Amino acid sequence: MRTLHHFWLSPFCRKIRIALREKNLDFQLQLEQVWQPSADFLRLNPAATVPVLVDENGTVVADSYAIAEYIEESYATPPLFGGDPQQRAETRRLVAWFDTKFHREVGEPLVREKAIKRFLRQGEPNSAPIRAGQQNIHYHLDYIAWLADRRTWLAGDDFSFADIAAGAHLSVVDYLGDVPWDQHEGARFWYQRIKSRPSMRPLLADHIPGLPPPAHYADLDF
Amino acid sequence: MRTLHHFWLSPFCRKIRIALREKNLDFQLQLEQVWQPSADFLRLNPAATVPVLVDENGTVVADSYAIAEYIEESYATPPLFGGDPQQRAETRRLVAWFDTKFHREVGEPLVREKAIKRFLRQGEPNSAPIRAGQQNIHYHLDYIAWLADRRTWLAGDDFSFADIAAGAHLSVVDYLGDVPWDQHEGARFWYQRIKSRPSMRPLLADHIPGLPPPAHYADLDF
Repeated sequence: MRTLHHFWLSPFCRKIRIALREKNLDFQLQLEQVWQPSADFLRLNPAATVPVLVDENGTVVADSYAIAEYIEESYATPPLFGGDPQQRAETRRLVAWFDTKFHREVGEPLVREKAIKRFLRQGEPNSAPIRAGQQNIHYHLDYIAWLADRRTWLAGDDFSFADIAAGAHLSVVDYLGDVPWDQHEGARFWYQRIKSRPSMRPLLADHIPGLPPPAHYADLDF
Repeated sequence: MRTLHHFWLSPFCRKIRIALREKNLDFQLQLEQVWQPSADFLRLNPAATVPVLVDENGTVVADSYAIAEYIEESYATPPLFGGDPQQRAETRRLVAWFDTKFHREVGEPLVREKAIKRFLRQGEPNSAPIRAGQQNIHYHLDYIAWLADRRTWLAGDDFSFADIAAGAHLSVVDYLGDVPWDQHEGARFWYQRIKSRPSMRPLLADHIPGLPPPAHYADLDF
């Protein structure tokens, strides 16, 4: 059985969970405590990061970038990056936007302060990075609305890994209750379309012990 | 003319400078002040990050991940990721190791404290992140030696983007004089082979005004 080693609030794992379902590939989830990696997990990935995919044929693929490209190469239908090099470059530019820029400016500080510190009993959340993340998200939501106003999906005519990356990163922040949807109608319309996809349903059922999501998290009409 | 928009001490730009030469693709460099991006540059990449490649046909590709995959798809020879999906996954795992883990643990803090603060006149370097970066590099050099002891190149039999990424990130730290080569013979032997490649020569001639490299930086026998 195909196995994805993951951690709940990792947007990088969420990307791959969505993408595997978009490709109609069955898999089981294996939860990893990345702060105390087991010897078995370190053998799979000496970087001790999630996600790691162990494919049906035994191929081990570590890192969400490597996994995303691997499943696109190995399971071509439906394509998630686009047809020609120019379209694929645009998809990857936006994947990098969310994996690097959104993660650094919004997701990483919010998850660290509001969730990881609690799991690891590292003391009280620090309010300065929380405020910064909550401030920075407005500009990213504006950018999503700007793109969705000009294109069918974020990278162009087709649903792509750009939508998957944006949806994965936003879903983590939404789980923490920190997406100001009421101020960003354009981004909300786009996210409603993302949320209604069958590939998103398992993520919307996530329920982390001790850290329940807000009521609207799983609601398709939020 | 193909143009690469770059900044000197960005390891992500260096990866692409090396890769373009490995693919025998001519290009010119355009220096960008990423802290004060021009309107023209923001039109090329609203994330305001380097590298950005403008290819001969006018295609604009932003982000080193997108550029790396774009030139591999558009200019197949020589391949820089490997032949089969498993080999490509291993190459990409190692690219991610250096782009994410090495950069966060070693390169980013050292470049920020020792170079960027000086360029931007942001005050004195902070010694704690410098010490952390200088400490963390040992484990990465051990990992390079471990891989190079078992394989011809870092990802396997062939020179690949894994070597390019590792070489690019290390070359930046070496420019700052912070690679303890004398304690890491295995990594040094591998880096001697990297340095002797024609694709590395332009990087070894880099000379940043006000921040000269150490004497051994361009020396092939260091």
